[in-house]
Amino acid sequence: MIRLLALCSTATLLSGCVAAAIPLAATGTLAGKSVLDSGSEESSAPAAPPEAAAAPVRVAERPPASASPAPKPAAPSAPPASAAPLEPASAMRYLYGSGEAAATGVQAYNALGEWLASRAQDKIAGRPAISTVLAKGATLDRPGFVPCDGKPLAVVFDIDETVLLNVGFEGHAARTGAAYDEARWQRWEQTGANQVSAVPGAREAIEAARRAGIAVVFNSNRSAANAAATAAALEGAGLGSAVPGDTLWLREDGAEGGKDERRWRIADKYCVVALVGDQLGDFSDLFNTYSPISARRAVAVQPMVAPLWGSGWFILPNPVYGSGVAGGFDQVFPADKRWSDPMGDE
Amino acid sequence: MIRLLALCSTATLLSGCVAAAIPLAATGTLAGKSVLDSGSEESSAPAAPPEAAAAPVRVAERPPASASPAPKPAAPSAPPASAAPLEPASAMRYLYGSGEAAATGVQAYNALGEWLASRAQDKIAGRPAISTVLAKGATLDRPGFVPCDGKPLAVVFDIDETVLLNVGFEGHAARTGAAYDEARWQRWEQTGANQVSAVPGAREAIEAARRAGIAVVFNSNRSAANAAATAAALEGAGLGSAVPGDTLWLREDGAEGGKDERRWRIADKYCVVALVGDQLGDFSDLFNTYSPISARRAVAVQPMVAPLWGSGWFILPNPVYGSGVAGGFDQVFPADKRWSDPMGDE
Repeated sequence: MIRLLALCSTATLLSGCVAAAIPLAATGTLAGKSVLDSGSEESSAPAAPPEAAAAPVRVAERPPASASPAPKPAAPSAPPASAAPLEPASAMRYLYGSGEAAATGVQAYNALGEWLASRAQDKIAGRPAISTVLAKGATLDRPGFVPCDGKPLAVVFDIDETVLLNVGFEGHAARTGAAYDEARWQRWEQTGANQVSAVPGAREAIEAARRAGIAVVFNSNRSAANAAATAAALEGAGLGSAVPGDTLWLREDGAEGGKDERRWRIADKYCVVALVGDQLGDFSDLFNTYSPISARRAVAVQPMVAPLWGSGWFILPNPVYGSGVAGGFDQVFPADKRWSDPMGDE
Repeated sequence: MIRLLALCSTATLLSGCVAAAIPLAATGTLAGKSVLDSGSEESSAPAAPPEAAAAPVRVAERPPASASPAPKPAAPSAPPASAAPLEPASAMRYLYGSGEAAATGVQAYNALGEWLASRAQDKIAGRPAISTVLAKGATLDRPGFVPCDGKPLAVVFDIDETVLLNVGFEGHAARTGAAYDEARWQRWEQTGANQVSAVPGAREAIEAARRAGIAVVFNSNRSAANAAATAAALEGAGLGSAVPGDTLWLREDGAEGGKDERRWRIADKYCVVALVGDQLGDFSDLFNTYSPISARRAVAVQPMVAPLWGSGWFILPNPVYGSGVAGGFDQVFPADKRWSDPMGDE
């Protein structure tokens, strides 16, 4: 049997689309083979069953592995080495280790590639460009965008956990159990350029954007003082060059961490046809004016905002840190969805 | 200034696309307003700084909030109530509470909507349909798909953390600190229909698929014995009806948990133009034959697989449980990305 793999047919200009004739032994079967993807091979805690790996993969599609976190240390300072966790937190295992997170990254970047290809084609055809940067005075209920006029096209990326995975920093934190420390993060920015990885799919999308003549601009809250080291980290991860003040926009000493001001400065120069990030603040600072988290979650998907996701605004998963990782039990799990085990709650 | 919001222009048949003329006060500004989305309002642990919320939102785009999990209890049994966690784990806060996860869901479902619209148009135009179910004997290096012939179109969804969020079950586990227990999960399937939520975007995509004449089929490892309760959960969440043996495929008592066999049975009847899930096993059981996690992660985005993400295969984020939540420190954080703090490691 010969079948043609042409599933990526909607990708045209930017996405490298593979078409291949594939011989298939139609009678062959690989069904039933199931290898346990046990995390225990190198686990530092073989005695404690890993939360997900202890359950066979065959039933892992159902929720077999509720995170059962133990209490956090009361002291905010770093716990002694003996208190280091026995295994990485679920969020870290997912983001830095899983095929699922890698696929989710590639999915977002495939969509970005198709979107940018269409915008480049619009430009060639003389169709008006669409900006994705909210204008001053716009609201999330009434979004309106900075005019593009005849400006050159650009795509604006956040950096951390959007195009770069901070594997070295988070691995250090996970191993030592140390709480976040701003000074240590600064040292990481300065010295960690070789311990990052590209988010899966980011490299290909960035290369394709550049080939299509779309400027690649980074807008990050990393420190401007560390611009050279951050540019080296990007370059080292295969993401090409970034030039401070032109294609690399960072937080100045003492400045607020909002990104709108920098977005508007970038939009003065470029027609920003796409924004890419892992935090809602990578799209508009307005999201961070909503509280509590239920209101923030609601506005993120309200009717005027929802159509943007995947069509101009592209979001990457990050369960490890940031403004999405917040809320107490009653906020994360609303009272109207509270379940009591009929056999009694533990 | 009047600008036209027409960013969702690529969505046609299925996506409800909003076009609105928006008056903008170009001189207005909302910049600089930043409200801390503190999780502390109802936190059960006001003394311990919430890992993400303690840092102002303005710097949250950088990694301020490394999860610093404490050791898991040594005993696999449920800890006493006093050992319940002080705050939900990062993965749970993200998946069940964040705007970021909601946006990521909507992004995936927007893409699905556009994909299904194109497939429905193909059908109307008489263009050949493309199946997304790997054929028996196919491999991930050489994917090949079950022929569609003239079969009616369908989209196949996983259920848990794909179309339904198990808010009640996970909230119960988070509050009590109880480890996963299969018997409790069965009780949840039987009694939890009112304590689930729809994944953001799922309802709209499912409704649009049905309107376009594409059958909506569920393939889940929930128990066939609880089919009625699972169908009620789906219906209660606004996802419409599911009929066991036709549009609802569940795991029979004692059966293996792989999904390929059920996928093939569904593909006997339908031309499956899209698969939707949160675990790699929702797309092919072959992924679960790869080990260690680095190999599994690599195959998920290898050149023959990568183009499928967002073009036939649609993945939702789930950092809380499953086959992606696995691996020890040395697997999740490879040795070549290990960073040492120049000021000394704690």
